[in-house]
Amino acid sequence: MNFKFHVIILCLISTLYIHTGYGQELEWVEIENGIWKSSVGQPEDISLLKAVDVKPKEEALRQLPLANFPIDKAKIKTKLIDGKTYLQFPLSREEQIYGLGLNFKTVHQRGRIMQLHVDHYGGRDNGRTHAPVPFYVSSKGYGVLIDAARYITVYAGTAVRVNADDKPVLRDRNTDRQWQAQPYSDAVEILVPAKGTDIYVFGGSSPMEAVQRYNLFNGGGYLPPKWGLGFTQRVPTLYSQYDIIREAKEFEDHNFPLDFIGVEPGWHSMSYPCTFEWDKTRFPDPKKFNQELLGQGIRTNLWFNPYVSPVGSLYPKIKDLSGSHTVWNGIVPDLMLQETRDILKDHFVENHLNIGVSGYKIDEVDGYDSWLWPDVATFPSGYSGEQMRQVYGLLVQDMTSKWFKERNQRTYGLVRASNAGASALPYVLYNDYYSHKDFITALVNSSFIGVLWTPEVRASKTAEEWLRRMQSVCFSPMAMLNAWADGTKPWSFPEVEEAVRDVANLRMQLLPYIYTTFSQYHFKGLPPFRAMNLVEGFSYDGNKSEGKLDSTNNPYKLAVKSEIKDQYMMGDNILVAPMFEGEKERKVILPQGKWFDFYDGSFVGENEVITVRPGLEKIPLYVRDGGIIPMRPVQRQAPELGEKVDLIIRHYGHKEGEYILYDDDGLSFDFEKGQYSMVDIKVKKDKKGNLRGTIGRPEKGKPYSYNKKVSWEFKTK
Amino acid sequence: MNFKFHVIILCLISTLYIHTGYGQELEWVEIENGIWKSSVGQPEDISLLKAVDVKPKEEALRQLPLANFPIDKAKIKTKLIDGKTYLQFPLSREEQIYGLGLNFKTVHQRGRIMQLHVDHYGGRDNGRTHAPVPFYVSSKGYGVLIDAARYITVYAGTAVRVNADDKPVLRDRNTDRQWQAQPYSDAVEILVPAKGTDIYVFGGSSPMEAVQRYNLFNGGGYLPPKWGLGFTQRVPTLYSQYDIIREAKEFEDHNFPLDFIGVEPGWHSMSYPCTFEWDKTRFPDPKKFNQELLGQGIRTNLWFNPYVSPVGSLYPKIKDLSGSHTVWNGIVPDLMLQETRDILKDHFVENHLNIGVSGYKIDEVDGYDSWLWPDVATFPSGYSGEQMRQVYGLLVQDMTSKWFKERNQRTYGLVRASNAGASALPYVLYNDYYSHKDFITALVNSSFIGVLWTPEVRASKTAEEWLRRMQSVCFSPMAMLNAWADGTKPWSFPEVEEAVRDVANLRMQLLPYIYTTFSQYHFKGLPPFRAMNLVEGFSYDGNKSEGKLDSTNNPYKLAVKSEIKDQYMMGDNILVAPMFEGEKERKVILPQGKWFDFYDGSFVGENEVITVRPGLEKIPLYVRDGGIIPMRPVQRQAPELGEKVDLIIRHYGHKEGEYILYDDDGLSFDFEKGQYSMVDIKVKKDKKGNLRGTIGRPEKGKPYSYNKKVSWEFKTK
Repeated sequence: MNFKFHVIILCLISTLYIHTGYGQELEWVEIENGIWKSSVGQPEDISLLKAVDVKPKEEALRQLPLANFPIDKAKIKTKLIDGKTYLQFPLSREEQIYGLGLNFKTVHQRGRIMQLHVDHYGGRDNGRTHAPVPFYVSSKGYGVLIDAARYITVYAGTAVRVNADDKPVLRDRNTDRQWQAQPYSDAVEILVPAKGTDIYVFGGSSPMEAVQRYNLFNGGGYLPPKWGLGFTQRVPTLYSQYDIIREAKEFEDHNFPLDFIGVEPGWHSMSYPCTFEWDKTRFPDPKKFNQELLGQGIRTNLWFNPYVSPVGSLYPKIKDLSGSHTVWNGIVPDLMLQETRDILKDHFVENHLNIGVSGYKIDEVDGYDSWLWPDVATFPSGYSGEQMRQVYGLLVQDMTSKWFKERNQRTYGLVRASNAGASALPYVLYNDYYSHKDFITALVNSSFIGVLWTPEVRASKTAEEWLRRMQSVCFSPMAMLNAWADGTKPWSFPEVEEAVRDVANLRMQLLPYIYTTFSQYHFKGLPPFRAMNLVEGFSYDGNKSEGKLDSTNNPYKLAVKSEIKDQYMMGDNILVAPMFEGEKERKVILPQGKWFDFYDGSFVGENEVITVRPGLEKIPLYVRDGGIIPMRPVQRQAPELGEKVDLIIRHYGHKEGEYILYDDDGLSFDFEKGQYSMVDIKVKKDKKGNLRGTIGRPEKGKPYSYNKKVSWEFKTK
Repeated sequence: MNFKFHVIILCLISTLYIHTGYGQELEWVEIENGIWKSSVGQPEDISLLKAVDVKPKEEALRQLPLANFPIDKAKIKTKLIDGKTYLQFPLSREEQIYGLGLNFKTVHQRGRIMQLHVDHYGGRDNGRTHAPVPFYVSSKGYGVLIDAARYITVYAGTAVRVNADDKPVLRDRNTDRQWQAQPYSDAVEILVPAKGTDIYVFGGSSPMEAVQRYNLFNGGGYLPPKWGLGFTQRVPTLYSQYDIIREAKEFEDHNFPLDFIGVEPGWHSMSYPCTFEWDKTRFPDPKKFNQELLGQGIRTNLWFNPYVSPVGSLYPKIKDLSGSHTVWNGIVPDLMLQETRDILKDHFVENHLNIGVSGYKIDEVDGYDSWLWPDVATFPSGYSGEQMRQVYGLLVQDMTSKWFKERNQRTYGLVRASNAGASALPYVLYNDYYSHKDFITALVNSSFIGVLWTPEVRASKTAEEWLRRMQSVCFSPMAMLNAWADGTKPWSFPEVEEAVRDVANLRMQLLPYIYTTFSQYHFKGLPPFRAMNLVEGFSYDGNKSEGKLDSTNNPYKLAVKSEIKDQYMMGDNILVAPMFEGEKERKVILPQGKWFDFYDGSFVGENEVITVRPGLEKIPLYVRDGGIIPMRPVQRQAPELGEKVDLIIRHYGHKEGEYILYDDDGLSFDFEKGQYSMVDIKVKKDKKGNLRGTIGRPEKGKPYSYNKKVSWEFKTK
């Protein structure tokens, strides 16, 4: 066979293909209600969604309104050149985009260029981050997902085509002061360095509806076990089992909440690289250790990174199933091979899950580059270093979560790298970056991309910073103090111990509300912690010039043109506006309607930007008019199975309200088979105009952990 | 023809190829004395060296010593996977590597990961820079060049293979304090995202010899016209021709050197995007303007960026020869097409060169990403946005330099993006980053990679900073004040005007030495401004632990383990140690032997690190024992053609010395045809032990611009 000749023919054909310019219009198939899929070229057999066994929540998707394909199809263009896929999506003048990974400094992504690359966040929103999800949400109410396990470059309204539909104005920099360094661009352009990719478009009537579709398509958000929403302390790395038992006692002595304890690298007989075997000196009896803590209602969560030490028992089994390069002298298991997963499962289930370990913290699957495998690494499954880098965090999450799921046991843990498709995974992202402000922006951004994020607390220079950080972490997906390096305790600053305990107790009191909020994530795809841009009553109006934030005449429409990155919603009703060290006051942008102070129920504003001076002890929290907040009395732990607690139901403002309280057993996946309660709480005005509360009853035989007795608190007088 | 079948066969073949792992040993061909070439896969028909018509200086290469292939060939490994080229080169324990682009913060590159990408420098040595040259120099005396116009990722001693020849020590982070976050790596690994590449290896007995080979292979370093080494002022952007004439007069009034003037964007009738046509208001008579300045011995240098405005006469001609995307509303000429180059040449030669313009400043061919064409851009020549990004700066340099070369006229200008192969191009790099310290580190690093760099001065907050910056720019390839935005003058801080004039005058006095130094760049490949690591008498000894820099017992061997990034050599004999604002003293690491103060000839140290307190007026300069420095009297300009000047010859120290003074007409390329002089200067001891100087005579008929009269200055008493 004349091989060379065929190569030439191939080249000629591809050359011809190139010069035809953009190919014909893509075919879009509506695969779920309001979700369309198309494929360009030859999508690879590894992808983000493929890495995580995604099963859409079809019934929930069907319950969303019908949606039209949200983009002018003729303006979506693709090309295949030189083994790469070029994509183009239109943008209109009045459009902002959100998402594109776990960004720490910016919420508005239009005008940015990012190469989405799993990595430790390095201080710039350039695409290198722990969850570089290639999904963007438009202020016009749709989302676009590029499902490729590649370093995708996104020109999010930056590149300007000669033949742009909506061209920037031509100006002379010499003389025209309106000249702009970054001219207007009417498109998102994307380079996927692969021969093809799947693309998904999520429709909706609002940005939130697009996000809901994204989350529901990815299995619905994860519903943590109740204990996962309590307080967690991660202990110093070399703590022995006795040290940890003592630590638990100290929490009891300080009357501080504690639901689970994080056990850091020292539990391994060697770590960095890891053996995944208990160190016999520090943990002579791991089973007893776990059982003793469980007896006190405290779970353990084990730290690991997945790089296998040559001195452990797993090494000879994994050796031929791992990549070409080491990470800290550990081999990298090829998790694209079922055999690898089976070996790890046997070991982890026997040595950890079977003796009571409740979950894991999966560290260092993100980067940094300087210690992770390089892009020239090869793996026995045949996937490249780049592909593995983009999905490895997903693979470890998927693998470990299945171990628990098979036992019908919910887990909740931590992971340092994720990507698209992660909504249903039981893990919360974290990192070492430790900027309090930017941690809050990450929490805001997590809501666009189907991941959870904790602004974990480690150490602080001052009592004020300590308290401010503890306050915000208590209003996040995981209320955690990570003392692995510093040995800090919640009471490390005695002068604020009381205030720290107050906010931790407040979180514990809010568990009925928080748990219900997470159930919305699962059943409706609503993120539990929400960017203001996802909240009804906010709109992004790109055409308006920036207004003064302190204006009092219905200013929020102007205000939202600037980024809102330091406040967010926890669930439907509570607006959280964290304070940062050194601040005596802050501005809070209120969504439409009247808003009320969480603590005393007083009216704080309506359609306006308010300035608040909450004092050191309190994190500013606001509730919407008619907002109902189910709470419970202060308790150090989430309820045990079968335990009944009293309900305290608060109502704020003057409007009538309604709230669906969710409950289930808090531990198993039986809720997926209908074993849950949804109870209707209503506040209505009687004939005299006084507010009266009523609460329904759970369906018989369904799990419900609340006593009949309800304390009603009408907070606004 | 069954197309699908052939594709399958192709895939099968490439799959087979993949699974053989690293291919067989590469074939290396010695293409020049001590330079070897090999090709992996199918190198692309665009590359860095191919973008600049490189002609090796074969005769000069032959004069270098013979060299053996410097690397164990069996340890150079390559793979082709998935359309990408993987490369692996060995490193030994005692080895440091330099180069890998114009870095601003680091000199030692071992342990770094870089993706080499033409871009504005963004504050991190991560590969994004103005000259991301894929060439590294080893302390063991060899260099490696990857000649691919792609974003090349280099793991410079970071990735650790499971099967490494020299493995890192296994340690337990739990208990071993010697545990390292970045384990030892015994290789440079490189990912070239292309189906193949050419590789060059440069041998040598020292790092400098490898650099010499690199520069000579790339045509030998550029020899600027004499006027190019004088002082240059770039004027505010909207200056008219009358303003500029007045500016020249001011320089005369202040008795300040001035050889050429930079004319900033305002000369265009529109700029950003550019018309390349004289603005009729500001420049009613450009020919007269140029001639008037030339009459005063002052050249003009015109700013442009290559993005063509729709309102200029070039636009309709270039429209179909440009890329798919605009830059600031300008179209991007496809310089890979000869037709494009011809059109531009006609316009530029007629409107600029023919009326006396001496050169260009080529701006914004580097990035930033947010305004340059995206990687999804396409060009009529068929090359990709990525490929064009990597070579565009080279292409503009190559095109414009040829216009001058054809006239037998030397030019000297500025460019903001370059790459491998640039040694012989008449351009100096610059940028907006403006960190004085990092500018000096860039100057140090420029010497490894065949580019020139100027630490240009713009503005300063204090007189001290101003003076310190002016001092260092006078010891760089281009002594420039860039006042385009700030309107500064050399005398902007009256309190240091005298000291600024002194250092500018000193540069003018040193022109015979500096010009000879540049001739060494051309004829021998020796960079004019040199990293200490390229200097004889320095060695990198990776095995030694770090010593105290203030030790006085022969400490420099230890000292060089830490990076030397704030001092450098200008030519063979002068060590430059710039001072930075706020510093009262600094340490200077002296190469082997005795060293002497440039100003007063006093002994300053021998084989040691000295601490110097030079005062504000002086930049620390040191001369080696026996060092000869040819100078001339203070003059405001470089000599005109035919002008003869007096020579002042300085000698330092106690040793005998020898120096070859180079000269030619200073303007044309006749020196390439042998029209130059090399005159031997010797200082020897007479019978009484007194030093006596002699100077030879130029060959008859060869250009030589010095009077017979020589003033000898034996600076050390």
